[in-house]
Amino acid sequence: MELGSKISATGHYLPEQIITNDDLSKIMDTSDEWISKRTGIRSRHISKDENTSDLSSKAALRILQNGNITADQLDFIIVATMTPDALSPSTACLVQEKIGAVNAFCFDINAACTGFVYALSTGLHMMQSGLYQYGMIIGAETMSKVVNWEDRSTAVLFGDGAGGVLLERTEDDCFVAEALHSDGGRHMALVANTMKVENPYGDSSQEEQAFLTMDGRAIFDFAIRSVPSIIREVMEKGNLSEGDLKKILAHQANVRLLEAISKKVKMPFSLFATNIAETGNTSAASIPILLDQLVQTKEIQLGTKDKVLMTGFGGGLTWGAIVVSLN
Amino acid sequence: MELGSKISATGHYLPEQIITNDDLSKIMDTSDEWISKRTGIRSRHISKDENTSDLSSKAALRILQNGNITADQLDFIIVATMTPDALSPSTACLVQEKIGAVNAFCFDINAACTGFVYALSTGLHMMQSGLYQYGMIIGAETMSKVVNWEDRSTAVLFGDGAGGVLLERTEDDCFVAEALHSDGGRHMALVANTMKVENPYGDSSQEEQAFLTMDGRAIFDFAIRSVPSIIREVMEKGNLSEGDLKKILAHQANVRLLEAISKKVKMPFSLFATNIAETGNTSAASIPILLDQLVQTKEIQLGTKDKVLMTGFGGGLTWGAIVVSLN
Repeated sequence: MELGSKISATGHYLPEQIITNDDLSKIMDTSDEWISKRTGIRSRHISKDENTSDLSSKAALRILQNGNITADQLDFIIVATMTPDALSPSTACLVQEKIGAVNAFCFDINAACTGFVYALSTGLHMMQSGLYQYGMIIGAETMSKVVNWEDRSTAVLFGDGAGGVLLERTEDDCFVAEALHSDGGRHMALVANTMKVENPYGDSSQEEQAFLTMDGRAIFDFAIRSVPSIIREVMEKGNLSEGDLKKILAHQANVRLLEAISKKVKMPFSLFATNIAETGNTSAASIPILLDQLVQTKEIQLGTKDKVLMTGFGGGLTWGAIVVSLN
Repeated sequence: MELGSKISATGHYLPEQIITNDDLSKIMDTSDEWISKRTGIRSRHISKDENTSDLSSKAALRILQNGNITADQLDFIIVATMTPDALSPSTACLVQEKIGAVNAFCFDINAACTGFVYALSTGLHMMQSGLYQYGMIIGAETMSKVVNWEDRSTAVLFGDGAGGVLLERTEDDCFVAEALHSDGGRHMALVANTMKVENPYGDSSQEEQAFLTMDGRAIFDFAIRSVPSIIREVMEKGNLSEGDLKKILAHQANVRLLEAISKKVKMPFSLFATNIAETGNTSAASIPILLDQLVQTKEIQLGTKDKVLMTGFGGGLTWGAIVVSLN
């Protein structure tokens, strides 16, 4: 008996407050034209007082509703985030409390913007063990709390939000193939909130950094090489051709980057779903938010044999791709 | 073909600097007698300037040496920690860089003191997919950077360190059984380093907390109920009796607690390995440090069919137990 799971529901939540490029231009030296031309971003959702566990919980409740199960049926909750509520408890434990998932075990995964792809891989392999009936995988970020609002080159890029999927045990596994990579040697291209050694018996000379810095050029160069390469790699592993894919859901970092990736991988841009105009870069949340929006608009349908390719990339550096069948 | 893995090597690293109870009594109102009577702790290793990725990397190099493989053979590195170097890059990516594991994908898991058990579960299920040859699972903490050194009730309890295991693909899976639980409803019993919502368009009224607080009584009560219960649960799942276990490796939080757990579960204290006298509570690092020490002293031996039970518990709240065969 082959064991596995299917994605039986999706869901997402975006905080109510929308901040447009024009809004940003009132507090920093930028403009709608500058931002939208370079990134494709027109607005983003910015949290007023909801933390990452709040965004996650609201997405989780929608996933449960869409999946028609109750919170106590969940065996596990994994939250992928680089902006947790705290170092302890995990954001996943706070979600457990807020939705009443009393029977779940809960932990966070951090792989920056690639977090959801890594967490989905983890969840799919957990389900392949045959030990669990329902698992929830959430990607969620409150990027607004780590962004340096004095740095117009990064502050305009990010947004807050959460999305996720319900994995349900089934014999016909939705997992098709995965390709996961990291390169810590290039970690300096994206650094957020360092925590140096500090105690009465020692002290690091390291400077602490309480916000996010990004070498935009280096990240663009990295993505334009690595994402086409990993798309090809995961398709080869899954023995797939372009016609086998209903949609490609790439991390929403920059629409110009996605256009360049589409060109380089020689696949039409219409195959690449995008919502970045209204969300900005929501890091680990971008792919599951997009996935749920595609399900809601019926551009993709759960319960079909359609295949989607999800690919994330970002801090670490990390990048990854998973192909699943929408069983 | 059944797919799985075995623990083919272990390793650990403790920072050189040892701080005794007497040393602590010079900077806070405490004493060797008070600490050792209540906790069994006599000294702990405290980092001078090595961060969590440094401790992890030094443990990782020993694991590679003991496993007789090179860093580039690793398919993945998972670091369980609640004291990462940064929110991005992950500590695992920094380990990748420091040891030269150029082919690995890397991410962090946060489940506080239960982190290693959760990460080992993740790693074992990743290996069961049959997709990977070698994976490294590390538990590592620099607790000294989150401890409140003004609070003598917690500052005396924690230590720094790292340990881990090499998982190697094999058909005869070492995985026997697991039991994993969380209760976010009781998360207030252990809170570390909260990060509130803060941006130009909103602000949380939440107080931020830059260190660890613990309700010692609540954690003790939780552990004395939940650890015996999860030991029984995982043994039942694995269809095991006491005689099947070579050693129980419980999270090293407090030797009095371990004695009480041993009594409550009606198994001899000699079955419970302990090193807390010299390490203090190293959170996610405690179990893999202990595991490697037992391998080094030959109290347990890799390559036998002996079974060990590992059980972690702590912030979240989270608790978990895994039984593996030392194939």
